[in-house]
Amino acid sequence: MKFEVTILGSSSATPIYNRNPTSQALNINEHIYLIDCGEGTQQQMLKFDVKASRIDHIFISHLHGDHYLGLVGLLSSLHLNGRTKPLKLFGPAPLKEIIELQFKHSDTHLQYQIELYATDATTHQVILDNQDICVETFPLDHRIPCTGFLFRQKKLLRKIIKEKVEPLNIPVSFYSQLKRGLNYVAPDGTIHQNGELTKDSSAPKSYAYCSDTIYNTSYFPFIKNADLLYHEATFLHNMLDRAIQTFHTTAWQAGEIATEVQAKQLLIGHFSARYKTLNDLLEEAQQVFPDTQLAIEGKTFEV
Amino acid sequence: MKFEVTILGSSSATPIYNRNPTSQALNINEHIYLIDCGEGTQQQMLKFDVKASRIDHIFISHLHGDHYLGLVGLLSSLHLNGRTKPLKLFGPAPLKEIIELQFKHSDTHLQYQIELYATDATTHQVILDNQDICVETFPLDHRIPCTGFLFRQKKLLRKIIKEKVEPLNIPVSFYSQLKRGLNYVAPDGTIHQNGELTKDSSAPKSYAYCSDTIYNTSYFPFIKNADLLYHEATFLHNMLDRAIQTFHTTAWQAGEIATEVQAKQLLIGHFSARYKTLNDLLEEAQQVFPDTQLAIEGKTFEV
Repeated sequence: MKFEVTILGSSSATPIYNRNPTSQALNINEHIYLIDCGEGTQQQMLKFDVKASRIDHIFISHLHGDHYLGLVGLLSSLHLNGRTKPLKLFGPAPLKEIIELQFKHSDTHLQYQIELYATDATTHQVILDNQDICVETFPLDHRIPCTGFLFRQKKLLRKIIKEKVEPLNIPVSFYSQLKRGLNYVAPDGTIHQNGELTKDSSAPKSYAYCSDTIYNTSYFPFIKNADLLYHEATFLHNMLDRAIQTFHTTAWQAGEIATEVQAKQLLIGHFSARYKTLNDLLEEAQQVFPDTQLAIEGKTFEV
Repeated sequence: MKFEVTILGSSSATPIYNRNPTSQALNINEHIYLIDCGEGTQQQMLKFDVKASRIDHIFISHLHGDHYLGLVGLLSSLHLNGRTKPLKLFGPAPLKEIIELQFKHSDTHLQYQIELYATDATTHQVILDNQDICVETFPLDHRIPCTGFLFRQKKLLRKIIKEKVEPLNIPVSFYSQLKRGLNYVAPDGTIHQNGELTKDSSAPKSYAYCSDTIYNTSYFPFIKNADLLYHEATFLHNMLDRAIQTFHTTAWQAGEIATEVQAKQLLIGHFSARYKTLNDLLEEAQQVFPDTQLAIEGKTFEV
């Protein structure tokens, strides 16, 4: 099952040429789960061939413009391009008023329904649970209410052992039940134990998204053992004072957090526009947590 | 005096790769007058080296997203980049509520003042009159209230005729008065007529901006004899039905309008995303009005 994230934007607050404000397209089994939607996200999707029609879920972490100002334009384009299927939107409650006000004045009447699930930035919540994924929010510590998101893959189906199954002439129509763990009863009544016919798939994986936040251990339990941890790293550690003042994290701290929560891999982003190149940020985080990569626009990372 | 327009975005409604929604930077004497501000305008300004700090006036024609969704991000970036001088914003009255709602939820408190001048899309208005330019609005005919803008250069200062002035040893400090039309009285009492010392500058020019609108002769008087007429041309004329249905103009009609109002040059834009290339639109308009050009992102046109 596909579980990968494509970076659409990695910059913080003010834009910089060639870096867009925050947005990520999480591809789970060919469904796109859009995380944050900074200005220009639609253009980035066109650029990197992320199909807007495949988005059924959008997650907004908080209401700073660099995380959501592309939302109304995207919702409008989906409408203009003929969307009729509902869309689930998870984010701060005021999104409803912000969207409705703008659609009122543009006289836009969507042909599809937006189902807004208001997140609560004061507590841990399970906000989505479908066949592929379970999504949880947890409180981050920023200047305004802000949630992190944890995307936890569902337990995967078992894998069929071909060389065991084929000689028994098991009907292909029964394969899906084998994958779900059922035994096979042959026409002659013989019971074949599932454990002999199938094997475990790889363990379910998890993607943790933490942006924006100051370093605060309170959210560490929610991202423990993440296979891929995206964490903001707005500043170099020599600007720790500024990071604290603005409720952001340094690259060094992001490395410390990944170490502390025993993440398998770390992805850093939300870079301040002051950094024209990003190598210093990468090297700083890697000094603490070697398996770190930069969230660069257009790059895709497997969870 | 510089009087030129740089195209920042030329697409309508839904975005298309390599074309941005509508925005134009009018450079009048090194001051930027921003006309419309579709999503991504900030990035386009970075790309084409239009300095945001030089913007003191923003004009929004109407509240369809492709004409203003980049505004809140731009206003926010000006603040984050330290702007303190006031900014004049001309556009529909609900802009106030739209901006304030979003700044409330992002807890943004601007360090500079936005002076909002609400436009009235039902009538002709003079909305700005400074030393360089007079700006008028006029009603367009669109699905929601929408104004066109006419930028009319002020009468230019007279030009000094050096070979007449220098032999008279006129103090340089008096040159500005000569340019404004005053006679020169020499120390011996001799009166030198201004008409002998200076000559007329070129005639003041005008830039008319018409987007979005259906073909409707009612606004023609306001754009009469424009030196440069920007007119939307969303569709080819074989889609006239669609143009009428959506209150837009065809390229053929844009050519007809330029002819009718005796514009000197025509610039067409606001192209539907269905047109991957724009040559057909250009050729269609040129069949009616030969001096037509395409509003292409990054191109600058002298008024």
